[in-house]
Amino acid sequence: MVCGHEDRVERMSKPIVGVIGLGSMGGGVAKSLLRAGFAVRVCDIRAEVVQLFVASGAVACASPAQLGAACDVVILLVLNAEQVETVLFGEHGAAGAMRKGSVLLMSVTVPPDYAERLGPRLAQRDVFMIDAPVSGGEAKAAIGEMTVMAAGPGEAFALCEPVLAAIAQKVYRLGETPGTGSKVKMINQLLAGVHIAAAAEAMALGMKAGADPKVLYDVITNSAGNSWMFQNRAPHILAGDYLPRSAVDIFVKDLGIVLAAGKTFTFPLPLTAAAHQMFLMAAAAGHGREDDAAVIKIFPGIDLPGG
Amino acid sequence: MVCGHEDRVERMSKPIVGVIGLGSMGGGVAKSLLRAGFAVRVCDIRAEVVQLFVASGAVACASPAQLGAACDVVILLVLNAEQVETVLFGEHGAAGAMRKGSVLLMSVTVPPDYAERLGPRLAQRDVFMIDAPVSGGEAKAAIGEMTVMAAGPGEAFALCEPVLAAIAQKVYRLGETPGTGSKVKMINQLLAGVHIAAAAEAMALGMKAGADPKVLYDVITNSAGNSWMFQNRAPHILAGDYLPRSAVDIFVKDLGIVLAAGKTFTFPLPLTAAAHQMFLMAAAAGHGREDDAAVIKIFPGIDLPGG
Repeated sequence: MVCGHEDRVERMSKPIVGVIGLGSMGGGVAKSLLRAGFAVRVCDIRAEVVQLFVASGAVACASPAQLGAACDVVILLVLNAEQVETVLFGEHGAAGAMRKGSVLLMSVTVPPDYAERLGPRLAQRDVFMIDAPVSGGEAKAAIGEMTVMAAGPGEAFALCEPVLAAIAQKVYRLGETPGTGSKVKMINQLLAGVHIAAAAEAMALGMKAGADPKVLYDVITNSAGNSWMFQNRAPHILAGDYLPRSAVDIFVKDLGIVLAAGKTFTFPLPLTAAAHQMFLMAAAAGHGREDDAAVIKIFPGIDLPGG
Repeated sequence: MVCGHEDRVERMSKPIVGVIGLGSMGGGVAKSLLRAGFAVRVCDIRAEVVQLFVASGAVACASPAQLGAACDVVILLVLNAEQVETVLFGEHGAAGAMRKGSVLLMSVTVPPDYAERLGPRLAQRDVFMIDAPVSGGEAKAAIGEMTVMAAGPGEAFALCEPVLAAIAQKVYRLGETPGTGSKVKMINQLLAGVHIAAAAEAMALGMKAGADPKVLYDVITNSAGNSWMFQNRAPHILAGDYLPRSAVDIFVKDLGIVLAAGKTFTFPLPLTAAAHQMFLMAAAAGHGREDDAAVIKIFPGIDLPGG
């Protein structure tokens, strides 16, 4: 099936949904939508990844513009604000092609002020935007159980309701103004990034001090030192498994967004700054594309499991 | 009843237990022991606090030595290693008075190498030591549901079994060597301290950026940015309530222990160092005896709830 306007009948019951960016999060979203019976259009610069989704029933679009023209709801899950600019407003960008009254679900982690400005730019073209960053990681995305922090107009939510139901376990409605979702997501990323770096620092010192890392994991996950990230990432360290569920580079970017916001507000962020330096150090040492738990590799003089 | 050897019959069923240090943790332990029907001896430099426990059925001892002579198990919950030295080996210290075969349950957070050396010093006097730091905070201590990270000889554990059952929900047996418990506790404190400071930094930036702090709390406690400490301490910030459950000064001390260990091992701890500076800044501004959530007060230019 080619990408186009061919299935008007289907649209009566469920919106046609497009997913731009088929990484760990976007890929999970596309899978969840296909599983829920949606007509799904997909677009990614990696042709081989697109083919995997076509094999599962998605329809490939050659450009963001082609996808935008064919869909009622477009979900963006590319890497950063620069890529958002390109896929929306660059050559063959989606924004100019999207139908009046259609919705852009903007789920990329971007600076809150960028999300704030993007809403009016799309409204000029009669396209609704929901500022809708997501949390939960690859595992939750794959089973349609992400957390969505969403701000946007009521009409847009009405159209997206079945879509959000298929991809999210919990949707926070944070008001009408784009930017609000991205602010909450930014604070979540501040904590997530600091907690991953803290998990690494703690496990590294524990090993250096001669504590059994498995015992540390067992005790701490039952104590006041626990965090969602410690519980989730320390097992990667214990297994010596740095296959990326979410990469070091993601936190180089996301904590960079947090620090840029701090600079804008003239606001000090000592822990965020220290954690950002740790992820930068890991990336500089060549671990940028490894799992973010690989930030522990910056600590010298310890024997990591599986190392 | 005066403090002495008067109740040998009772000893047949349950050990006589002494608690030195009746702060938020030691006080909770004494209460839990009284509730469980133990004969409890107490000692604290604050006479008015001792009287509260006497009114609940405990027996006051005038000195650590008097308490040590009267008990089968002595639980230490003073503030730091200096106070441990004083109550054990200072004038009228407990160590010289404790009975052969009795047990010191050392639950103070101290440098692991101090705990390691303390074991043999007590063994010379035929007193067993369990290196047994605790976690869970005032609330868990009060209801006898602390987590205990314990290392010590098997005979000592046998004698202490009913005592531990009365004060702890979970007891981790971490081997025979004193120091092992304190190492695990040190790593837990590293994480706990960094997470409290991170919760403050995150809530502060959120408020500065114009996010609703209650919404932040709600979303983050359901997202990957959550931690035990964020969940527990952010409500103090939301309520503007800085009555100390655990004070800023405690983390000035505990992160100091972590940093000293790092120095001993020539091991870098960037996040611990940044968090320690934040607690020091709060203490320097006069908030040392407030709840540790008061570390958020170091951030200028935000309107804190209840402020």
